Amino acid sequence: MPDQTYRKAPESLRSDARENRERILAAAREAYALQGIDVPMAAIARRAKVGVATLYRRFPTRAALVSEAFSEQLAHCVALLDEGLNDPDPWHGFCSVVEQVCMMQATERGFTEAFLSQFPDHAGYAEGRRRAEEGLALLVRRAKDCGRLRQDFDVRDITLLMLANCGAGAGAGADAPAATRRLVAYLLQSFRAETAAPLPPPAPLGLDRIPA
Amino acid sequence: MPDQTYRKAPESLRSDARENRERILAAAREAYALQGIDVPMAAIARRAKVGVATLYRRFPTRAALVSEAFSEQLAHCVALLDEGLNDPDPWHGFCSVVEQVCMMQATERGFTEAFLSQFPDHAGYAEGRRRAEEGLALLVRRAKDCGRLRQDFDVRDITLLMLANCGAGAGAGADAPAATRRLVAYLLQSFRAETAAPLPPPAPLGLDRIPA
Repeated sequence: MPDQTYRKAPESLRSDARENRERILAAAREAYALQGIDVPMAAIARRAKVGVATLYRRFPTRAALVSEAFSEQLAHCVALLDEGLNDPDPWHGFCSVVEQVCMMQATERGFTEAFLSQFPDHAGYAEGRRRAEEGLALLVRRAKDCGRLRQDFDVRDITLLMLANCGAGAGAGADAPAATRRLVAYLLQSFRAETAAPLPPPAPLGLDRIPA
Repeated sequence: MPDQTYRKAPESLRSDARENRERILAAAREAYALQGIDVPMAAIARRAKVGVATLYRRFPTRAALVSEAFSEQLAHCVALLDEGLNDPDPWHGFCSVVEQVCMMQATERGFTEAFLSQFPDHAGYAEGRRRAEEGLALLVRRAKDCGRLRQDFDVRDITLLMLANCGAGAGAGADAPAATRRLVAYLLQSFRAETAAPLPPPAPLGLDRIPA
């Protein structure tokens, strides 16, 4: 009954099982950082030095493994977003969220893919993404309402920006933070209401878009 | 003597050899488009239905194969650049080159990697890249001198833009052209002299940066 095993809280696992779990999560984060989230489950089992059966007993689906591996970063993102939403200056809050999330992308490869991917079979993850979507929509609305964010900015442009930043980071390697700072600075300047010129329509990009 | 074989002009090859050559190039372009330029030579041989020895006889190095496979696109890029440099309106010329090269990226995956990669052992390719670098530097200078491009724009920002566009295209899949249009429109607005606000320093990105 893999479902029951999976639903057990980490606290209820015996100590050797807990060690296995932590080793698997560490191996998964390493593998995702190096190769992206398409790494086969068997490769993660090898890296963690556990059997494939053990891996699947702990994490019956790839979605479960990805979301557990990045739960800390996801929580950090949610906290950033809350902070941005509570900023008394909505434009400053918007810019801070964009800058900080993009810097996380630049420094923690794999996380973006996890964040942008859609794993409808994992409730906790879907819930995190739903909250992120709602929070971002509100962040955008507040920044528009205060007159600083251009009116034709679309919430899907945030996905566009994250995908672009992902490409810049992948190409820049060790210089990813410098590339992110420059790219994000350019884009935030183009998002300002006072500099707005006509744009082509937004690309249909939800946060559920999976990078190739 | 693989070097001699390789240096033979296509015209001097017998007709079956010519057919092999075309089949290999077509297979290489397909494979690069699907999987990027890291595809093993053996996989390209299989796709082209030729032996690995035949493949290496025609193209002794991966660099030789990549550069031949994309020679047409590279020539197209060079032509675009020449056109931009001859535009009586330097800002319009600059924008056209950026828009058209980015649209090529969006529609022909693999080409960007080839264009951005460094293959120092292949003279024709290195020459193409050198010309591209010189042309882009001139394009940037003209656009600054006419007062439309911001003075703190750096030629390395073109690499940054291409890498960003690469990420947007990879994530957007079939919507890559729409994503490119939107991203490039935002960035070109942020490049205008009249909207310039302070920026962090440019990331050290030459055209020789290989996307991960």
